[in-house]
Amino acid sequence: MAARKTPGEDQSLAEAARRLLGKRRLILATNRGPVSFAAGPDGRLRPRRGSGGLVTALSQLGKHLPVTWVAAAMSDAERRAARDPELLRSAVPEDDSLRLVFAPIERPVYEAAYNVIANPLLWFLQHQMWNLPERPVIDASVMRAWQQGYVRLNEAFGRSVLEQVGARDKSPRIMLHDYHLYLAAATIRRECPGALISHFTHIPWPPSTLWQTIAPEIREGICDGLTAADVVGFQTERYAHNFLRCAESFLPDAKVDYAAMTVKRGRHVTYARSYPISVDVEATRRVARSRSAARRREALEGMRRERLIVRVDRLEPSKNILRGFLAFETLLSRAPRLRGRVTMLAFLVPSRTSLREYGDYGRKVQAAVDRINARFGRADWRPVRLFYENDYAQALAGLSIADVILVNPLVDGMNLVAKEAAVVSDRDAAIVLSETAGAYDQMADGVLTVAPADVIGTAQALRDGLEMPRRERAARLATLRDGVEREDITWWLRTQLEDLAEIASRRR
Amino acid sequence: MAARKTPGEDQSLAEAARRLLGKRRLILATNRGPVSFAAGPDGRLRPRRGSGGLVTALSQLGKHLPVTWVAAAMSDAERRAARDPELLRSAVPEDDSLRLVFAPIERPVYEAAYNVIANPLLWFLQHQMWNLPERPVIDASVMRAWQQGYVRLNEAFGRSVLEQVGARDKSPRIMLHDYHLYLAAATIRRECPGALISHFTHIPWPPSTLWQTIAPEIREGICDGLTAADVVGFQTERYAHNFLRCAESFLPDAKVDYAAMTVKRGRHVTYARSYPISVDVEATRRVARSRSAARRREALEGMRRERLIVRVDRLEPSKNILRGFLAFETLLSRAPRLRGRVTMLAFLVPSRTSLREYGDYGRKVQAAVDRINARFGRADWRPVRLFYENDYAQALAGLSIADVILVNPLVDGMNLVAKEAAVVSDRDAAIVLSETAGAYDQMADGVLTVAPADVIGTAQALRDGLEMPRRERAARLATLRDGVEREDITWWLRTQLEDLAEIASRRR
Repeated sequence: MAARKTPGEDQSLAEAARRLLGKRRLILATNRGPVSFAAGPDGRLRPRRGSGGLVTALSQLGKHLPVTWVAAAMSDAERRAARDPELLRSAVPEDDSLRLVFAPIERPVYEAAYNVIANPLLWFLQHQMWNLPERPVIDASVMRAWQQGYVRLNEAFGRSVLEQVGARDKSPRIMLHDYHLYLAAATIRRECPGALISHFTHIPWPPSTLWQTIAPEIREGICDGLTAADVVGFQTERYAHNFLRCAESFLPDAKVDYAAMTVKRGRHVTYARSYPISVDVEATRRVARSRSAARRREALEGMRRERLIVRVDRLEPSKNILRGFLAFETLLSRAPRLRGRVTMLAFLVPSRTSLREYGDYGRKVQAAVDRINARFGRADWRPVRLFYENDYAQALAGLSIADVILVNPLVDGMNLVAKEAAVVSDRDAAIVLSETAGAYDQMADGVLTVAPADVIGTAQALRDGLEMPRRERAARLATLRDGVEREDITWWLRTQLEDLAEIASRRR
Repeated sequence: MAARKTPGEDQSLAEAARRLLGKRRLILATNRGPVSFAAGPDGRLRPRRGSGGLVTALSQLGKHLPVTWVAAAMSDAERRAARDPELLRSAVPEDDSLRLVFAPIERPVYEAAYNVIANPLLWFLQHQMWNLPERPVIDASVMRAWQQGYVRLNEAFGRSVLEQVGARDKSPRIMLHDYHLYLAAATIRRECPGALISHFTHIPWPPSTLWQTIAPEIREGICDGLTAADVVGFQTERYAHNFLRCAESFLPDAKVDYAAMTVKRGRHVTYARSYPISVDVEATRRVARSRSAARRREALEGMRRERLIVRVDRLEPSKNILRGFLAFETLLSRAPRLRGRVTMLAFLVPSRTSLREYGDYGRKVQAAVDRINARFGRADWRPVRLFYENDYAQALAGLSIADVILVNPLVDGMNLVAKEAAVVSDRDAAIVLSETAGAYDQMADGVLTVAPADVIGTAQALRDGLEMPRRERAARLATLRDGVEREDITWWLRTQLEDLAEIASRRR
């Protein structure tokens, strides 16, 4: 199970960085930074390490190249830090490889951008989670949040990025991330026409049909902002293709070349590319092998009768948790001999608990679990064990001892649980994966495929996983593991840096 | 306003029919027939003329060519008629141009096919009306309804069609219609390899991403059934393209050529084509000018203050009626001087009243109307007048006297109201149309465009329509009217017959 990454791969990442940057720093912009701050009683800033897949992935960068990281100031303490860099330096010592900067975003701007546009509108749209006959309703308050929230936040981000550009640098290297920052490239491009800008969208990019339902000002603004970048990256080829269709449909002056995967507007060319994100294989294994994971593994093993089905997800409607439990219920009802022998462990991480939809969904999930446990449970066996907390070591411990791992999102930009599962499994787990997860494109050959609304098919896939001979499971898992080790987080970063370097060298 | 159709156009339809059919009859299959029957107290069948756009459109055919029309037996009386053709002949005299046949479908088969698969599953999927985190749930009852309902209904239809084929005819000409009959071509092809078969889908065909959520057995079955036809027709180019993507994604042996718009499986080629359906211009105008319409027009004119906004729709969530009222409410709230002057007439036809979603939606629509009337109404002015009945003459009367016509579906295969509006308006109405309606492809140049979830944009479009100078409205309407007169229902039929005749002649 040793990682087969050689030192050469880190070197080629460093080499790609040198080629791209020369003596520059890479400027990175994300909504959430690698460290967040609250004010202590003495007024000094107290750091707290950030979490989330994006931050974890990008934190790699600082190891290999000099990075200036611009994040949104989200607390009052961070807004003070945005105005007073000294305050920040006193909390995190200036580090040559990673320099942190906060973009000063006023609270009402941030609230409107985040709580009206980015999370409810764009997240729901891009994950196809709307009940379209009734929502969304693009009314005056939404348009105000767009104009006075999302647009301003992106302008502020753009200005903060520009402030980090060296005085004589006509071609800074800038990477923007995700659905909070679709417009920032346009602000940067206006002030600094020679900038080399990439934007990466971590979530799905649905077909233009869905974008067509919302206000033209919003979808055109987003396509306009993204086409100000040089490269727009997506998790899959399909998403990149969908983006090109949107650019063609919504921007009157866009010339799209589907073979070259480019959008041309005037003389500016934007490349649409896919860069499937991945995990840091060694870091993931380090946690899975840690003493705290070992303790948790022991506790979890106590819940095993014979076999364990495991899922790990944020508690989020797009993760399709309800239908996952319906599938397990169907399995127990159709295969009585599995009762008392198979237990499902669900590690659900609290998420966006302030959104009504998430609260409602959580209650339905709990009700489904209660129903299954009441229907099939015995004094000596509880069919489903629900863990509702954010404990990464415990989740990895669960994945490592699973016989079958269920990853059945409705739709998912990538889904890193499937990739983590492939590199931490100690039992050659069978992985059941939705074909609508971005990860499916790379993992199709080794997983058991399900369509997310197909509860019967999912129940069958769980059963197939439980009944699969160990030899076949081992062969499949080896394929998956090799794939993740080869196309890991370093590969994800390196291919992006190389593509940018290539564009830079052609431009010279 | 005279129809500019010349006798020559009917002749070219008849000519295309002769070229396609030779001495054959065209065999047409639809779920609902042109006439339905109930048993009278004496046991004899009592005919009732069918309604609905599809039946109205296809009833044209009998005027120009000999047609045998196969429809599902839906009542017990019709099931008796299916077994006993004499019974049918006693109710509708044998007519050389139109011969009616009922396919014998047992009640449980029909109920499962219609009430579990076609209407809730396929209609909701193809109109993107799901709240995906919770529905659909493809469980055992859905799969049973698929296998024992939808599949069997299609086999029964296929057999009924085959029974109508002349004994020595190796190449019967068969047109299948809509989402109830996706599989029938496969049954026909098996028994009669030389048949020339077209299938036309009247509703939208969404991107493959949406089909991907449901059980592989269902979506593959549908693509397999459709690719047994020679031509699969859709309302728009986009839908035809989406179908090709589905065939490529779901059928392992399908070879898709996007330039030629074909799917090849083995040696069989299926052409994906768009044939935007339309109205019978003369028949529509005849109703609009009838005495009953004149009486209704007079009554409606009594409700006019200065200006009228009119909408006509089945009461159906995909028609986006709620947001239409929200837009009118926004308009009244933002433009106080319109209060007391502009009235909205909404002609809503009852539809699928037994489906819970439709009932819930209807109550929300009524509540929105009540709220607007309570908020803005005066003793001498009720802002919204709701007509909840099926009165075609009244609906056309309303369209003819409208100043602005609102057609804002979420998504719509075609939407014939927009086309009817263009040919019956007596006031050069401004037509507000969703860009997600199939009709938009032909009508974009003359309408005011809205995105369906964009309530603010819709309110603005209504206002633009009310404020548009009569001259501009007249010019736009003339463009739209010319288009509908040119590409009318005869044109829709003729182009399909010509394409089939072309394939037949190449095959010889």
